[in-house]
Amino acid sequence: MTSPSEYVQTHRAEALSELRELLRIPSVSTDDSLKGEMARCASFVLDRMKKAGLDATILPTGGHPAVYGECLHAPEKPTLLLYGHYDVQPPDPLNLWRHGPFDPTVEGEYLVARGATDDKGQFYALLKGVEACLKTLGKLPINVKILIEGEEEIGSPNLTSFIRNEKSRLACNWVVIADSSQFAKDVPAITYGLKGLVYLELIVRGPRKDLHSGSYGGSLANPANVLTRMIAACQGPFGRVAIPGFYDDVRPIEDWERREFEMLPFDEAGYQRETGVPQLFGEQGFTTLERKWARPTLDVNGLLSGFTGEGAKTVLPSTARAKFSMRLVPDQDPEKIARNTRDFLREIAPPTVEIEILSHHGAKPVLVPRSGKGVQAAVKAYERGFGKSPVFIREGGSIPVVNTFQAELEAQSLLLGLGLPDDDAHAPNEKFRIEDFYRGMVMMAALIEELGR
Amino acid sequence: MTSPSEYVQTHRAEALSELRELLRIPSVSTDDSLKGEMARCASFVLDRMKKAGLDATILPTGGHPAVYGECLHAPEKPTLLLYGHYDVQPPDPLNLWRHGPFDPTVEGEYLVARGATDDKGQFYALLKGVEACLKTLGKLPINVKILIEGEEEIGSPNLTSFIRNEKSRLACNWVVIADSSQFAKDVPAITYGLKGLVYLELIVRGPRKDLHSGSYGGSLANPANVLTRMIAACQGPFGRVAIPGFYDDVRPIEDWERREFEMLPFDEAGYQRETGVPQLFGEQGFTTLERKWARPTLDVNGLLSGFTGEGAKTVLPSTARAKFSMRLVPDQDPEKIARNTRDFLREIAPPTVEIEILSHHGAKPVLVPRSGKGVQAAVKAYERGFGKSPVFIREGGSIPVVNTFQAELEAQSLLLGLGLPDDDAHAPNEKFRIEDFYRGMVMMAALIEELGR
Repeated sequence: MTSPSEYVQTHRAEALSELRELLRIPSVSTDDSLKGEMARCASFVLDRMKKAGLDATILPTGGHPAVYGECLHAPEKPTLLLYGHYDVQPPDPLNLWRHGPFDPTVEGEYLVARGATDDKGQFYALLKGVEACLKTLGKLPINVKILIEGEEEIGSPNLTSFIRNEKSRLACNWVVIADSSQFAKDVPAITYGLKGLVYLELIVRGPRKDLHSGSYGGSLANPANVLTRMIAACQGPFGRVAIPGFYDDVRPIEDWERREFEMLPFDEAGYQRETGVPQLFGEQGFTTLERKWARPTLDVNGLLSGFTGEGAKTVLPSTARAKFSMRLVPDQDPEKIARNTRDFLREIAPPTVEIEILSHHGAKPVLVPRSGKGVQAAVKAYERGFGKSPVFIREGGSIPVVNTFQAELEAQSLLLGLGLPDDDAHAPNEKFRIEDFYRGMVMMAALIEELGR
Repeated sequence: MTSPSEYVQTHRAEALSELRELLRIPSVSTDDSLKGEMARCASFVLDRMKKAGLDATILPTGGHPAVYGECLHAPEKPTLLLYGHYDVQPPDPLNLWRHGPFDPTVEGEYLVARGATDDKGQFYALLKGVEACLKTLGKLPINVKILIEGEEEIGSPNLTSFIRNEKSRLACNWVVIADSSQFAKDVPAITYGLKGLVYLELIVRGPRKDLHSGSYGGSLANPANVLTRMIAACQGPFGRVAIPGFYDDVRPIEDWERREFEMLPFDEAGYQRETGVPQLFGEQGFTTLERKWARPTLDVNGLLSGFTGEGAKTVLPSTARAKFSMRLVPDQDPEKIARNTRDFLREIAPPTVEIEILSHHGAKPVLVPRSGKGVQAAVKAYERGFGKSPVFIREGGSIPVVNTFQAELEAQSLLLGLGLPDDDAHAPNEKFRIEDFYRGMVMMAALIEELGR
């Protein structure tokens, strides 16, 4: 009898060709003119789920539909839910692509296309792993559900209510999320920590319209001057955050964790070269990985005010805006941090301007327990798929759905990334390593077998 | 015999109709596609100078041509040069105009069109004043030259070298510049002080490309964070400038000047209403007019970094830019201030980013002596044209050509504004008060007579 991993090896070309077909569909969820392509993409995924041997259906949401498949023939056995998304980021700026973003092209060991790693390549590896089990084992040793949503790149606005409404359909013990990455090439990783997020926008308003900075300067507050001072006041030296109370609930990094981070093959010089900065930087007393993974931050994400064209215009701007976000670590609470930040900004805002503070996003920080059957099985599955044990890592990003699965389904997330840190998700020439696509399928099939033992 | 002022009264309709014709020409100097219109506008002005009775010609510059006219039949008598510009600002944003910007329309007591006050309406009043003298007096009691350039709105890039090359042609005792404004409606003013200017742009560069703020935040310096801190560091409380040495050469406001400012009918509440700010603001120990006219300032003119669209994007920007300018008062030296500012920024820039500082503009502050024959004649001319004595005022803006006339021609500038502070020069629905257009012609004719006494 063929094993699932043998099935993967003999179906490599077929799987790659199907993935290329999937990548050819421009399923950009934020682009209203591509609604038809979104529907076409959902149909394609549905069709592939059915061909894999799952009972599958399209489930409407308030926005783009989700695609759902299941194979529930293991009574008394645990249930695994696989989560991914079929929508992709817009491909702009188009001129920086080496070829069409929706014309998937093999370049050396990589497949290059929008969505290659985020998230079509990754979720398709999971689906093909399930297929390999179904085609070779006849029936699965556990129950498997798979949910592929279509709104991740627009912030999954309907996902929480969808999960709440479909609680019994989605009930499960673990959720596999393959939307993160390995630590490095050939260093597979299980992510057990994610930062939380508070994303705010400060708008400072002064005069009713832009004024001449010569005629009016000095006699009324310039909103751009005020904005720079207010945002500067949120910052302490060396990347510290100066908002009162910000560090109150920060859980210190454990000694064992520091030692683990230190043992990771992190190439500091390579990281600096990759980013192109003259020097790395951060909170004193912490290593780069500690800063990235386990210390909270404040980053300005956007600034806009006045004249921004070439050359000079002597304008005293009517308005100034700063988008900024704070990444949180356990046990910081996004609502409390947002409230503190708003209070602080209102307190330091001079009475000579009006301010408005918009809230864009929030997410709680996450630490997934590293013990338990799910994680143990995932370690073995990685060993079988990638030929080596995974390292345990944290990430600076946020995956809000992890909190939702925990809160609504009481399911533990397994963050099993197949991508690489330099895959350029969201950027031009996004790529996915083809070998890791195949390894991911084997890993997925192995995970089903391990959980079924 | 008809007097010049009677001539003006009987030729009002004709003058207004000519001005409307002039305003119909879209002479936008910054718009390359309107080069033909620039040439057509120069021809129109040339033709009107000739019809007024001047020897006139088009003079090429490195860019848009200047139009020059003269009437030099008063040997042994002094010479007056009139300066203005026939180019105008771009009319954008078009949708805010009540009618076409180049479709001059009478609205109540105003003529509304791009260039109405800046500077076509103003220089055309001067030209018609000269015409009134020539048509009624036969010959002028002094020598008159008139120079109307075509590049003022793009910073007069060729004017200094042009004036240097045409030194003997342009030689004069006084220069009338009608490109400022009255203090208020029916409060005509002679401007004797202008602020200087240093306009810089700070560019902070960090990572080679925009990065994900979750994955990279905290481990490298965010250029937008750094920019806000650097610009904030240039600012002290209450609009003070915190750059070391900035106030070293500031000439204190004289007691007599403070008393004069105080006597002006300045409507503080109206000024606040007009600008729409919740509260006025500025350096402690100074009145609003003192802050506007006689105290140096620092204003951010533009901010740009990262994601500036609607909503949120968790980007750690590669670059952040701030355009900012300092308005200077006597005896601050723009070169010294620019040097100090650059030194200060380089000193406070952290080694974790790269910075670049661009210089956009510079101008020396100006104080025109208020004694002397020119100013005395101007006072009398205002009394005859406007029926009341002018007040003496300063301005927060800069008119760099004033320095050039002083340096190259050793000529004293007479800043005789005909516009009003709320004429919306550079903004949609720019306007010019028609009555002041006629008064300006009478004033100009009277000035020639007064200087000829």
